[in-house]
Amino acid sequence: MCSSPRDRKASSPDIHVISPAGVVLDASRLHRARANLAARGYRVALDRAALARDRRFAGSDRSRLAAFARAARGPAPVVMITRGGYGVTRLLDALDYEQLAAAGKQWVGFSDFTAFQFAMLARAGAATWSGPALLDDYADEPDDNTAEVFDDAMAGRLQILGFASRGPAGVDVTGTLWGGNLSIVCSMLGTPYWPRVRDGILFLEDVGEHPYRIERMFTQLLHAGVIDAQAAVLLGAFNGFPAAAHDGGFGLADVVRWLRRRTRTPVIEGLPFGHGVSKLTLPHGREVGLASSRGQTYLVMPDAHVH
Amino acid sequence: MCSSPRDRKASSPDIHVISPAGVVLDASRLHRARANLAARGYRVALDRAALARDRRFAGSDRSRLAAFARAARGPAPVVMITRGGYGVTRLLDALDYEQLAAAGKQWVGFSDFTAFQFAMLARAGAATWSGPALLDDYADEPDDNTAEVFDDAMAGRLQILGFASRGPAGVDVTGTLWGGNLSIVCSMLGTPYWPRVRDGILFLEDVGEHPYRIERMFTQLLHAGVIDAQAAVLLGAFNGFPAAAHDGGFGLADVVRWLRRRTRTPVIEGLPFGHGVSKLTLPHGREVGLASSRGQTYLVMPDAHVH
Repeated sequence: MCSSPRDRKASSPDIHVISPAGVVLDASRLHRARANLAARGYRVALDRAALARDRRFAGSDRSRLAAFARAARGPAPVVMITRGGYGVTRLLDALDYEQLAAAGKQWVGFSDFTAFQFAMLARAGAATWSGPALLDDYADEPDDNTAEVFDDAMAGRLQILGFASRGPAGVDVTGTLWGGNLSIVCSMLGTPYWPRVRDGILFLEDVGEHPYRIERMFTQLLHAGVIDAQAAVLLGAFNGFPAAAHDGGFGLADVVRWLRRRTRTPVIEGLPFGHGVSKLTLPHGREVGLASSRGQTYLVMPDAHVH
Repeated sequence: MCSSPRDRKASSPDIHVISPAGVVLDASRLHRARANLAARGYRVALDRAALARDRRFAGSDRSRLAAFARAARGPAPVVMITRGGYGVTRLLDALDYEQLAAAGKQWVGFSDFTAFQFAMLARAGAATWSGPALLDDYADEPDDNTAEVFDDAMAGRLQILGFASRGPAGVDVTGTLWGGNLSIVCSMLGTPYWPRVRDGILFLEDVGEHPYRIERMFTQLLHAGVIDAQAAVLLGAFNGFPAAAHDGGFGLADVVRWLRRRTRTPVIEGLPFGHGVSKLTLPHGREVGLASSRGQTYLVMPDAHVH
């Protein structure tokens, strides 16, 4: 993975951190993550409900909705999440997407946060960032690539992202970049929060899902006509699942083979994006270019100056 | 649970048993189940591929498709499955629903088989039976109620099914009975295999899904407008899931409460249907009556003679 040439010393925007979904149980870990992010030049403000708890949630629905509103009207141009988990889906009916979009913030997150990103795109045509979460990516010494690409994205310096890939070479397309967590993506199908993106570049990742479930979800997207309608599909990390005794050798490779056999849309593996891995910061809902050569794929950002 | 009065000695139809999804690893268990079912007066023929294996599947897709075709053109009026697992979803594009419906068979199954039942209803308007699977329900001494209701259903004697329930009393509605496994139901959303049933009676069960995932699936159905469009929702068994360390008391009761708060559609718990439990045999895709009193709910079958 490489990011475009950049100036490390450009100004870093302030960041407001919210907990929109699962409870944060380890406060000291959160403070360590905040310090690690701050060490890269950011002023990082934890939302006052970032450590709230209501059963498995980071506070009641009302409290988490209020955190979205505080982040939207606060001064920080960037809003990051502490972690995913489960919880944003419950809030979708109660968020005002036009108002949130009008606030002009750069919302960053992944996993469960995919639900918010889909809703923002579907209801307000608004772009967000698919990228790191504070606890996932900064609690330990942050991965260099994750942190540098995030810095570039937030500073408006992101131009070209390249990564080692497997899949068809010679793909050269432009389209809306969208996607995220496969389980969340599929749980938006049939709802008003589904962005009807055609000729897009759909990226997918998941954690803790057995390959047969990943295949079932791919199959839903195939049957719904979503995969065939895309210019390309990018697969990130699919990890952290248990094998079953009766798998008989059935695994992720079978699933990807199955997907490729069922669609003409190019399917490219290797996107650095997912759970517990080095991850890119990707402009969700914006038009990007994609070019694949043998073993390498490049994403050309909307603001890239390519000569 | 009680079934309508019936004559135990009426003729029992022949049954053709197929494996449309997951591999059957224990042949002796299958033969024991067959003997238990046969002991109730049925002639039970195992499809020749019932014990086939391709990795985690009961044979290749081609082999499992051929089993559907054999069952459809064979002499037995009833087609039962050995078990669910995962596998029918992969076949949906390759099945000829009009032809299968024209064969006039009584297809019986649950779990993964829900996908076939949805497709039959959506594509051919055909009714099927949501009911026992050979390995799940006959390998051990069959549950009396499961077996008796199945016998009545297959003999065309099913009139009224009653069961102890929790939820609103005074519900008195008529509508298409449909549903099945919640994960499969949600994985059909947005696809051509979704039956657009309005004012129906939707029943749901699942196994091995944490309550937060059950809630996420309910929420998808809510957002898709499915729940509000029904005359009633019946909840079967939701079991076999692991608790998470950070649940903080969050459980199934919260999820049902949440569902009830989000819809005016009556939500009735206690339907004897699901994994590893006594289960009714229900006419999927047919119009039934539903009446709930305090602690008891009755389903009135399409062929019932009620005076």
